[in-house]
Amino acid sequence: MSKKIALFPGSFDPITKGHEALVLRAIPLFDEVIVSVGVNTIKQCMFTLEQRLEFIRTTFKNYPNVKVTTYQGLTINYAVQIGANTILRGLRNSTDFDYEKSIAQMNKAISPSVDTIFLITDPELAAISSSLLRELIKGGANVQPFLPTAIVISN
Amino acid sequence: MSKKIALFPGSFDPITKGHEALVLRAIPLFDEVIVSVGVNTIKQCMFTLEQRLEFIRTTFKNYPNVKVTTYQGLTINYAVQIGANTILRGLRNSTDFDYEKSIAQMNKAISPSVDTIFLITDPELAAISSSLLRELIKGGANVQPFLPTAIVISN
Amino acid sequence: MSKKIALFPGSFDPITKGHEALVLRAIPLFDEVIVSVGVNTIKQCMFTLEQRLEFIRTTFKNYPNVKVTTYQGLTINYAVQIGANTILRGLRNSTDFDYEKSIAQMNKAISPSVDTIFLITDPELAAISSSLLRELIKGGANVQPFLPTAIVISN
Amino acid sequence: MSKKIALFPGSFDPITKGHEALVLRAIPLFDEVIVSVGVNTIKQCMFTLEQRLEFIRTTFKNYPNVKVTTYQGLTINYAVQIGANTILRGLRNSTDFDYEKSIAQMNKAISPSVDTIFLITDPELAAISSSLLRELIKGGANVQPFLPTAIVISN
Amino acid sequence: MSKKIALFPGSFDPITKGHEALVLRAIPLFDEVIVSVGVNTIKQCMFTLEQRLEFIRTTFKNYPNVKVTTYQGLTINYAVQIGANTILRGLRNSTDFDYEKSIAQMNKAISPSVDTIFLITDPELAAISSSLLRELIKGGANVQPFLPTAIVISN
Amino acid sequence: MSKKIALFPGSFDPITKGHEALVLRAIPLFDEVIVSVGVNTIKQCMFTLEQRLEFIRTTFKNYPNVKVTTYQGLTINYAVQIGANTILRGLRNSTDFDYEKSIAQMNKAISPSVDTIFLITDPELAAISSSLLRELIKGGANVQPFLPTAIVISN
Repeated sequence: MSKKIALFPGSFDPITKGHEALVLRAIPLFDEVIVSVGVNTIKQCMFTLEQRLEFIRTTFKNYPNVKVTTYQGLTINYAVQIGANTILRGLRNSTDFDYEKSIAQMNKAISPSVDTIFLITDPELAAISSSLLRELIKGGANVQPFLPTAIVISN
Repeated sequence: MSKKIALFPGSFDPITKGHEALVLRAIPLFDEVIVSVGVNTIKQCMFTLEQRLEFIRTTFKNYPNVKVTTYQGLTINYAVQIGANTILRGLRNSTDFDYEKSIAQMNKAISPSVDTIFLITDPELAAISSSLLRELIKGGANVQPFLPTAIVISN
Repeated sequence: MSKKIALFPGSFDPITKGHEALVLRAIPLFDEVIVSVGVNTIKQCMFTLEQRLEFIRTTFKNYPNVKVTTYQGLTINYAVQIGANTILRGLRNSTDFDYEKSIAQMNKAISPSVDTIFLITDPELAAISSSLLRELIKGGANVQPFLPTAIVISN
Repeated sequence: MSKKIALFPGSFDPITKGHEALVLRAIPLFDEVIVSVGVNTIKQCMFTLEQRLEFIRTTFKNYPNVKVTTYQGLTINYAVQIGANTILRGLRNSTDFDYEKSIAQMNKAISPSVDTIFLITDPELAAISSSLLRELIKGGANVQPFLPTAIVISN
Repeated sequence: MSKKIALFPGSFDPITKGHEALVLRAIPLFDEVIVSVGVNTIKQCMFTLEQRLEFIRTTFKNYPNVKVTTYQGLTINYAVQIGANTILRGLRNSTDFDYEKSIAQMNKAISPSVDTIFLITDPELAAISSSLLRELIKGGANVQPFLPTAIVISN
Repeated sequence: MSKKIALFPGSFDPITKGHEALVLRAIPLFDEVIVSVGVNTIKQCMFTLEQRLEFIRTTFKNYPNVKVTTYQGLTINYAVQIGANTILRGLRNSTDFDYEKSIAQMNKAISPSVDTIFLITDPELAAISSSLLRELIKGGANVQPFLPTAIVISN
């Protein structure tokens, strides 16, 4: 039987407690979970690629089945290239749902061998998004409670 | 590493092409997929338990990793009892999402060792529900296009 | 060019100001609008079929292009039978949307020659549903403001 | 300035930790919060009216500004009768939203002097509904974690 | 009886198989369908206005009742100016619904003589949006399956 | 008993009839309603801060319990600083709901002493947003019907 590999793609600008929880829930479901930062040369990020990768590596340093990578171009192409049979996504609310549904449907049309599975975000983490965290950081709030325990972002 | 077992629970009154597609997509993700008919002595069904089981068994007869069972009581208790680490559910639209989110959250509160994963229904199958099929059957419509290929329901 | 006929099906138990407004908006779009009461022998109604038809006839008595009929069985079969190319439905909110989307998709699978078009309910009428009106009537409220002007229901 | 009175209506079959949390959040906003059980002679309840009232009274026994009552008929009429300027409702998800929006709009049409305010349910309580609890109780699950701390329901 | 003219407005950057399907479904409903590219001098487009018009003209070259135009300013003003009684819009999901509902309501407030009708996108086309296609084109994917058959975009 | 103060934050670019209606509904619920313009040095506005404040002051000049202010940084920090126990928000539709839910949850995590309450927008005002008004103004439409009665914006 072939290895079960899940790709968990994102910008991770920065990684949140929500992302961490999803990956930890995915570990028992797959042989390998690949957390991969999509590199987009146009989108302006708050944290450098190096910082974002470092945060992710620190978060999962005790989990040998979690690999951390980067990719360029379409997520679905990268999934095929690394032999991932599954793309893993979190759903927070019904607005997420409509968006993710379209992406998953398109990806399947492009490459039917890769399927997308969804985990519904733990409710106490559903409000946490990277974009909200960036707002909080700009506003000088303490975002530590919304970050993976292992990482520290000082304002 | 422990066996990866997914429970796919439902009434299956009757099983639809949508149910079939979900299970076929789940097969590569798990070592075993258990399709289980929840027996509810109060709810009036159109098809007998025996008919419903027969439809399901026929649908998956060529898939040795699919088991067909019945259960009584809470789905989450049955999942624990048979050692399933995962409950598998399909999401068709955002109304489904809100409902499934509550159920998944409750199940996790009751038994944190079992997680729920979701597949978004293929768009051309998203309109098919057992309850809609029952309406069509009552109205004398040909429901064959909405049923798994292997089964036949004659009006 | 063939006649443009729209079928507006429902239980109309009772017809509301919202139903009335939809039909009035549909009149300029079609050559004929057929308002048809689906007769369901199981569903318990508050108003008799005769009362419901009378309310509808009174509401549209000044509109010669509106016909009032009844039907049994599947709406889509009735549409085909009377030569309606279009089923007309109102959308009040996003919960309606998910439900109506499934029905329209099924109908198209059964009979591709009939399409469904949607009008979004006027916002000040979006809260009015027949089921809410029945609750209000049972509770002794004055529902006159929610009914077509031409009809009177006295508690 | 007139007294600020909020009516929190429901079936409370049974009261949940979610209901409790909403009322506790409403207490600082109002001079008086009236938790009132709507008595519906048709709807079959799991708990008797006396039990439901007892659970509510126990839950709020230390809060002198919370009154517990019953009412019959339309909620909006009862609100007017007891001089409540506000109806308090919880929102758990977007399906709730569409439903509550219609009710609030109708109530305002009937009695413009009473407004409805909404609190969004705490995320870790959003999955808890009385109907889900009743399912759990029937299935023999321990529902104690989902009940107000002061009350005990033994299976 | 006056001519029934529907305006189907958009950016069409580029036109998709989804747009094509909507117009084809609208043709039997109206005497004339005007597909019109809204020219927005600020918004940066991937395809030039000339390219976008050419794609649309090619798509509908066999349909004499489809006219292709451009407009500037508010869609509703353009509808009035060309004597269109109807604006035609597609609905893909419930997020679309909330947005389109607001636009339609505003348009009606500005010009009550123009109504908006909605067709729900065919499910297998619901994931296709121009913005998603642009992402795919940038990422080097083959978008041919998502375009009207008559047009070719080579990467 | 401490004073009940509600903060109604926003960009108000420009204030709409919808904003006005929400504040008027909030006045009987609170001792003081503070309408505050969040100053964001990055976001480009159509109206200057002075114009926006002037519009708001004019709108509520006859309501002594409404104060008009500005703030910088996070809304939740400003609420704490001015002693507001409540943040007031309007909900127009279910897309709003998902967004507002996240913000409210985050704010509560940061400062549990401030709660957020929601009023559902009057249906005939639900389509009006500042961003839609700006589009209309750019397109040369008459937006007077969507503005508070006391203010005039001439194109």
